[in-house]
Amino acid sequence: MIPGDGIGPEISESVQQIFAAAEVPLTWETVDVTPVKGPDGLFHIPQKAIDSVNKNTVGLKGPLATPIGKGHKSLNLALRKEFNLYANVRPCKSVEGYDTPYKDVDLVTIRENTEGEYSGIEHLIVDGVVQSIKLITENASRRVAEFAFNYAKANGRHRVTAVHKANIMRLSDGLFLRCCREVAEKNKDIKFEEMYLDTVCLNMVQDPTKFDVLVMPNLYGDILSDLCAGLIGGLGITPSGNIGEGGAIFESVHGTAPDIAGEDKANPTALLLSSVMMLRYLNLGSYANRIERAAFETLREGKVLTGDLGGKSKCSEYTAEICRKVQIID
Amino acid sequence: MIPGDGIGPEISESVQQIFAAAEVPLTWETVDVTPVKGPDGLFHIPQKAIDSVNKNTVGLKGPLATPIGKGHKSLNLALRKEFNLYANVRPCKSVEGYDTPYKDVDLVTIRENTEGEYSGIEHLIVDGVVQSIKLITENASRRVAEFAFNYAKANGRHRVTAVHKANIMRLSDGLFLRCCREVAEKNKDIKFEEMYLDTVCLNMVQDPTKFDVLVMPNLYGDILSDLCAGLIGGLGITPSGNIGEGGAIFESVHGTAPDIAGEDKANPTALLLSSVMMLRYLNLGSYANRIERAAFETLREGKVLTGDLGGKSKCSEYTAEICRKVQIID
Ligand SMILES: CC(C)[C@H](C(=O)O)[C@@H](O)C(=O)O
Ligand SMILES: CC(C)[C@H](C(=O)O)[C@@H](O)C(=O)O
Repeated sequence: MIPGDGIGPEISESVQQIFAAAEVPLTWETVDVTPVKGPDGLFHIPQKAIDSVNKNTVGLKGPLATPIGKGHKSLNLALRKEFNLYANVRPCKSVEGYDTPYKDVDLVTIRENTEGEYSGIEHLIVDGVVQSIKLITENASRRVAEFAFNYAKANGRHRVTAVHKANIMRLSDGLFLRCCREVAEKNKDIKFEEMYLDTVCLNMVQDPTKFDVLVMPNLYGDILSDLCAGLIGGLGITPSGNIGEGGAIFESVHGTAPDIAGEDKANPTALLLSSVMMLRYLNLGSYANRIERAAFETLREGKVLTGDLGGKSKCSEYTAEICRKVQIID
Repeated sequence: MIPGDGIGPEISESVQQIFAAAEVPLTWETVDVTPVKGPDGLFHIPQKAIDSVNKNTVGLKGPLATPIGKGHKSLNLALRKEFNLYANVRPCKSVEGYDTPYKDVDLVTIRENTEGEYSGIEHLIVDGVVQSIKLITENASRRVAEFAFNYAKANGRHRVTAVHKANIMRLSDGLFLRCCREVAEKNKDIKFEEMYLDTVCLNMVQDPTKFDVLVMPNLYGDILSDLCAGLIGGLGITPSGNIGEGGAIFESVHGTAPDIAGEDKANPTALLLSSVMMLRYLNLGSYANRIERAAFETLREGKVLTGDLGGKSKCSEYTAEICRKVQIID
């Protein structure tokens, strides 16, 4: 457990209480990933945290603040890189009772999580002229494409859409697209389609039910996953998982909300639903189902909700309500 | 006039008829931009077309098909580059009577139109490893930022939002953002705000009325303008203008719709509203206003609409209805 900053500790505590109420057979090891200055004068994720994730292979993570100042990179990204978590999975499913103009959304964005526009390679060519490098490799593209098709199969889904701008970035998105096509060829039981990112955005806001599983380079996933979260109610209720070869970190992707931190007002739903993804990943599906049902019922009833969800309850009250339900659901 | 391919000629004809009905004091010179093979064996935009745009400085353009096969670049992009049309302006305003979940949308995306992810610079580093270069320059960034603030002032708008991912692309988007900040400093009468692209997308689908003028690098504009078009009814009703130092090309950004080409079914609205932008650019605002009112009234009444707009009328009938209205509006 990486509780994180701001509201992180509160919502982590909430998840742990719900796990306890559901009697999930897991023990938590809690670590702090706040970078510490090493002997080289640079800041690093503490070795203890790295060892913990490597040993346990699976983690749950609250929001992290990116330290201000030059040279500090986003810690969220550092973790994805450190553990080579190559696929970022963000399911986006309408929550019953949650009022939005969109109904019956049920899609999953799968984002390449290690390269692309997030390569971190940039140069100042001459004063006033800068380049950033979008790096696309066959290995990473094939790997995430395979992940997407396997995910579709394992989750009873029927279609994978490759999202790209290969009309503009012919080599890079072209390579990504070719890998998707090759993997699609070997998985004929899943329907495959290709669509320009701009066209996906347009169609997404007009009718998100057209989509099923979407796979795409890093930045496009960053954008589309937020767009989709917006359609069903925002980052407060959408889970996320970063999956690698030998491990995974599940995380809520909302911010640290420093303005309400420590006030028992935070909404733990995104972290809780991320923990539900984690339980499924750990083959603890029956616990996942119970916790998910308890959360969705609480949301649907709408009686005990935190402020951002339109209610008047505290984080602890919302948590207690889910704990209560978890214990009576069978 | 560059009629373009597919439905291009029909919708261009429609606009010309409406201009005639409104007695717009303009004469058309019609040119074809289909690339022809030059003595160097490469395909080029015909010199006649280039001369015509250079001479008249202003053009209206229907959709263009990108020739299939290696080495052909998008002709739409080639024109933007050829004439250094550095700012792409796409107003997005709810059309009364047009049923969408979003009401009162009234925003404008301003897209840097010459560089960024559209630099066209890509390399195969080794087999299976490709890079695309996002090129950001101070000149182009400052120029489009200034354009955005000037546009805001000239059009009675109050706020400019710079859209970026400078948390990831620190140098490139960082430079773009710095230019926006500097221009904002000199234009304190316009409110300035900065927002991550992913956050913009999330907020946009939740409440587009939060936004006014948005300025951003090339690809982000491609994405956001389609997203916004989706909110108000799609590319069939959204205009676009590509503005340069000494000239401008206004265009509909929908496709060539080859399936219905020549059948009198096409919807000329996007090209017509683009021509309205053109008239304003040419300081022919009173003609622009009359044509716009005639088009919006026809859309609001909903009696004579093309199929894609939910009606049963032909392109020629819709055109005739707007011509009729244009003549009685004063
Ligand atoms: C916090 C930020 C660096 C991150 C990203 O850009 O990937 C976030 O937006 C996300 O989607 O996880
Ligand atoms: C046709 C295509 C090359 C173009 C782009 O990517 O800019 C289009 O999507 C647009 O928005 O004008």
